[in-house]
Amino acid sequence: MAHSHEHDHDHEHDHDEMDECIEACLQCHVVCTMTAQYCIAQGGEHAALDLVGVLLDCAQICQTSADFMVRGSPYHTITCGACAAVCRGCAEACAAIEGSEELAHCAEVCGSCAESCERMAASDDEDDDE
Amino acid sequence: MAHSHEHDHDHEHDHDEMDECIEACLQCHVVCTMTAQYCIAQGGEHAALDLVGVLLDCAQICQTSADFMVRGSPYHTITCGACAAVCRGCAEACAAIEGSEELAHCAEVCGSCAESCERMAASDDEDDDE
Amino acid sequence: MAHSHEHDHDHEHDHDEMDECIEACLQCHVVCTMTAQYCIAQGGEHAALDLVGVLLDCAQICQTSADFMVRGSPYHTITCGACAAVCRGCAEACAAIEGSEELAHCAEVCGSCAESCERMAASDDEDDDE
Amino acid sequence: MAHSHEHDHDHEHDHDEMDECIEACLQCHVVCTMTAQYCIAQGGEHAALDLVGVLLDCAQICQTSADFMVRGSPYHTITCGACAAVCRGCAEACAAIEGSEELAHCAEVCGSCAESCERMAASDDEDDDE
Repeated sequence: MAHSHEHDHDHEHDHDEMDECIEACLQCHVVCTMTAQYCIAQGGEHAALDLVGVLLDCAQICQTSADFMVRGSPYHTITCGACAAVCRGCAEACAAIEGSEELAHCAEVCGSCAESCERMAASDDEDDDE
Repeated sequence: MAHSHEHDHDHEHDHDEMDECIEACLQCHVVCTMTAQYCIAQGGEHAALDLVGVLLDCAQICQTSADFMVRGSPYHTITCGACAAVCRGCAEACAAIEGSEELAHCAEVCGSCAESCERMAASDDEDDDE
Repeated sequence: MAHSHEHDHDHEHDHDEMDECIEACLQCHVVCTMTAQYCIAQGGEHAALDLVGVLLDCAQICQTSADFMVRGSPYHTITCGACAAVCRGCAEACAAIEGSEELAHCAEVCGSCAESCERMAASDDEDDDE
Repeated sequence: MAHSHEHDHDHEHDHDEMDECIEACLQCHVVCTMTAQYCIAQGGEHAALDLVGVLLDCAQICQTSADFMVRGSPYHTITCGACAAVCRGCAEACAAIEGSEELAHCAEVCGSCAESCERMAASDDEDDDE
């Protein structure tokens, strides 16, 4: 997926970095959505409300964060910041349950997305310092 | 719409306050979505990318914020905080264009939603102080 | 929530009927989202993938259906038709589990939304017959 | 993005075909979202309500359709059918405006997504014939 989106804001990020973050958020949305279904199907500790709940949360904020960036919204640093926080929580919840390849994979994807979103959110602060 | 949602988190807000915030976010989602269409239909300064863009942003983060609260997510203070910031920006963008009843109404709805979301976001800090 | 949305299409429904359908879809979105969380929290037969899965499906298509109508989209009859089908399935899945007030309520809300959406979808066919 | 999602339904599609359709829907969501912003930024005939409206519609139903498949929902044939219809309309609206590389690209992406979704929707009918 190649992006050539318009940016209507002053905080001009490197396009490659934003495209990378969009991809990370879209992938995290898909993986969290799949993993929530997997957990419900597994039942037991996998279907705990805390785990499934944060997976649904993470899927939704990742989609929102991706869409803000795709729209070139000047508010994407705010949504990236929120997304990073939820991704961190989701990664921890997934990593807390041992012995599941699916949850380990999801934890990794959420962790990567959190890092990418943190970089986008931080670039706003850098801009403000200029 | 009466809500009797489960809360799976420590930060127990007053239910009435959360229900009020859910309603505010859902209403703001609807009004921003309608107002974006109105602006595109009007054309001219109403159809400026900055205005339509923030209306689409606001509609989406309001929906996300409402859903986090409906799910009783412990992360709802984060999404409420993000929602408040975008609502403030949307209210300003709407108020900046004079002579439109629709935009004045949207500015008012966004302002109310921002206030409600700010209260929800702030209640997290209070909890942390306890 | 009073709506005064613009309609950009030939198939002019009665505004009250469309507003009623928007409300039904928004309410069904909220109730299905809450009920999915309730089911996951309950565990056991409530947390069966078939039930939670269709609740998540229903919540999402209801939101999509509502948004198409709020935008005054000429394609709202298509999304209303899809929404009605998923609502029917969700109402059946909820009604199949006895002894739960929450699921009985959700079944009722989904059934009402299905009826409202079916009327909207059918009004398109009537228009075509003219 | 590799998918290994669970299917909880009888209508077992070829996994590659479903993965391809998920990718098509996600790409179409992104391209329609970007193209809507592009059209609003361009103004004039690009910012006509019919065009921007169907781009927003298409972006939303593509996301919904993708999510139903990612969840392995048995109702994905219904949402794929709705998605195909909206994608067809969006492709036509984009193709109707000449001389824009962005709209020509969007028309192509919507056309491909429509074809992929039609195959998924049709596979349900085939299953029913067995």
